[in-house]
Amino acid sequence: LESGSVRKATRMLNALHPAEIAHVLQSLPPRQRKIVWQMVDHAAEGEVLLYLNDDVRDEILRGMDATEILAAAEGLDVDDLADLVQDLPAKVTSEVLSSLDEQRRERLETALSYPEDSAGGLMNPDVVTVRPEVTLDVVLRYLRRRKDGLPELTDNLIVVSRQGRYLGVLYLTDLLTSDPDDSVAEVMTLDVQPIPADAKARDVANRFEQLDLITAPVIDPDGRVLGRITVDDVMDVIREEADHQFLGHAGLSEGEDMFAPVLLSARRRAVWLGINLMTAFLAAWVIGLFEATIEKVVALAVLMPVVASMGGIAGTQTLTLAIRGIALGQLSAKNIRWLVSKEMAVAALNGLLWALVVASIAWLWFGNSSIALIIATAITLNVLAATLAGALLPLVLDRFGIDPALAGGVILTTVTDVVGFLSFLGLATLFLL
Amino acid sequence: LESGSVRKATRMLNALHPAEIAHVLQSLPPRQRKIVWQMVDHAAEGEVLLYLNDDVRDEILRGMDATEILAAAEGLDVDDLADLVQDLPAKVTSEVLSSLDEQRRERLETALSYPEDSAGGLMNPDVVTVRPEVTLDVVLRYLRRRKDGLPELTDNLIVVSRQGRYLGVLYLTDLLTSDPDDSVAEVMTLDVQPIPADAKARDVANRFEQLDLITAPVIDPDGRVLGRITVDDVMDVIREEADHQFLGHAGLSEGEDMFAPVLLSARRRAVWLGINLMTAFLAAWVIGLFEATIEKVVALAVLMPVVASMGGIAGTQTLTLAIRGIALGQLSAKNIRWLVSKEMAVAALNGLLWALVVASIAWLWFGNSSIALIIATAITLNVLAATLAGALLPLVLDRFGIDPALAGGVILTTVTDVVGFLSFLGLATLFLL
Repeated sequence: LESGSVRKATRMLNALHPAEIAHVLQSLPPRQRKIVWQMVDHAAEGEVLLYLNDDVRDEILRGMDATEILAAAEGLDVDDLADLVQDLPAKVTSEVLSSLDEQRRERLETALSYPEDSAGGLMNPDVVTVRPEVTLDVVLRYLRRRKDGLPELTDNLIVVSRQGRYLGVLYLTDLLTSDPDDSVAEVMTLDVQPIPADAKARDVANRFEQLDLITAPVIDPDGRVLGRITVDDVMDVIREEADHQFLGHAGLSEGEDMFAPVLLSARRRAVWLGINLMTAFLAAWVIGLFEATIEKVVALAVLMPVVASMGGIAGTQTLTLAIRGIALGQLSAKNIRWLVSKEMAVAALNGLLWALVVASIAWLWFGNSSIALIIATAITLNVLAATLAGALLPLVLDRFGIDPALAGGVILTTVTDVVGFLSFLGLATLFLL
Repeated sequence: LESGSVRKATRMLNALHPAEIAHVLQSLPPRQRKIVWQMVDHAAEGEVLLYLNDDVRDEILRGMDATEILAAAEGLDVDDLADLVQDLPAKVTSEVLSSLDEQRRERLETALSYPEDSAGGLMNPDVVTVRPEVTLDVVLRYLRRRKDGLPELTDNLIVVSRQGRYLGVLYLTDLLTSDPDDSVAEVMTLDVQPIPADAKARDVANRFEQLDLITAPVIDPDGRVLGRITVDDVMDVIREEADHQFLGHAGLSEGEDMFAPVLLSARRRAVWLGINLMTAFLAAWVIGLFEATIEKVVALAVLMPVVASMGGIAGTQTLTLAIRGIALGQLSAKNIRWLVSKEMAVAALNGLLWALVVASIAWLWFGNSSIALIIATAITLNVLAATLAGALLPLVLDRFGIDPALAGGVILTTVTDVVGFLSFLGLATLFLL
């Protein structure tokens, strides 16, 4: 960006959708990011912040003072504001709260009272409700008189009782294609199940995906309508879940900024390397128990990574399948036994097959049939142990409130290293010396 | 399921949404799955098939004859039919085609002419179009006269010229809240960019996510409207992409059935184990080069997995970040240099830090300062090499048309094993003997 063309670049930038501006910011290294952020229209700042991932947003918020943040927050929807406010320092949050009119403050406080990963945390309180006894014609006239149109992503109006209890939804498409003299009650759809405010975000996402929903009403325990969830926020949940699974196996967090400052990245990664180092040293300690054996039969040192690696691969496959099964709600304590027995059968077949292959190669290489027999046994044992661990770990960790996407891989590696080295070197010590 | 309650179970099952029935089927082992499938209403079979993942769907289709498949396919939307037909044997496909009326056959053939992972493959030809010069009142009356309502997930009508060229969209919400005497041209939205039919599914998904779209029009190179893409199909793309990334690192395919038959699973997994075995044997071969060294200093055999493991972890973190960056369109040849230098800086810091830690432990353990120095050097080198490979591999593989989510991990492991063992044992041979 040469200085002469700054004005042109600014104009181009601000012609973009806030989401696209956010995308540009996320694709830039920190220094350029700061320059480009300065070029963003003040009126668009709030929207752009919403589309940034957590790390980048935090970085930018840290560079803004309270007045700037207040200005950016102005004009945002309450549910978006709730997302933003959760990342702000407490002092700024209370300033934002006191800058709002009473209705918006109340709504924001309601939104903040639910955890971010619940239906209540996802919902938007801006709903348009209608009563069942009025005619469609009345609804049509009412809509035409609304000054500010309908909220974004409105595909239906929520039908409520006099007490504000959920009754059903009136799809705009049905409103448009039915006889205006019909009543709302005659045309409304009854089979859209409202979502309780305390439902988990993951379950909400699965329901949206299964039923192809655009929006869904959220209710309190008394059946009163609190707001609605829209598909754009659900897509974010799906993306975050997926990122969490994929990045989690490498010990990265889902808000990870690809262009985070070096020191921040280094500090975060260091933790993961340290945890894995403990695993590696545990494996080294196991090998150390058999120093005398290795000294006599060096071939063991050559072949031992093969034993650990085969277990690791087989176990990772089962672990990955189980983690995904739980996330999609397809795997639970009810059918885990079936998965375990199926995976163990697969492991037995593949363990034996590859044990034979490895044994043959080892025999050809070192001309020692005992080593061949020992490595075959060790691989079979390790593949079986790894598979059992891979299948059971996710459910067990989940039960104890530990995140399998994060911890599963490390624990599995520990199992496959320890069982692999222990069985291979242990058997060798027993039968070779 | 006791035999007495079969009728009750059947009733309960068929009260569910087809997507929920599919979910039940996917959570069941093969034998029970077959029984439950028999209980599904014939009229719902087509819909249920659509919601199943590839493996389970194939399994069930294999159990059906052509007449049954034809019956199930009846009444499906053309775009759904296109998804289904792609999994059928050619003979059944042509039977399905000839069973359709001319209009549907033509539409199906159009849909099949685009690759499954393009905008054309995702689109649904069922669009409602309006002309810009008519008034909203005319549109409202036209809609009310439509016998079969509007297609599912309709949030706008597409405004086209006399030649069928895309002009803009008329949101139903605007139609409902504007003056009926206004013309479509006055009320329509111009800033929804139509999607070319040959756009990649991944790019379509990113656009839907960024712009919070519900539907988007698809056009041919002349700007003529071919159909529209709906958010439910986009969510499937996002889910499949995510599954592909997450399952790919374990060598599993995204359509993987958790409860696939043992022999099928075993055969598929065997391939992945075999590929990884080659990597493991390459590592063993490298170690084998230094048998004489290990025989003299057994501590090397004890410590060598630590060197390989630290490289593996550091490299996997960078690889994971780069794969995700490419998928989200945030990483390209343009900014890869920045990522590489940032990741190398992180690697240098963490490599040195943990090299020091490992060296200290090795020194305390074996009381040999040369080994400590050698392992520190080897770890630093391996972490740097692994990081470089992790950052560059995804773009390079992508360039050659190889899938980084699948091949990246295997190649990275090869690099970290070879560099790790070679540097550690090589340095030891040079300086210890």
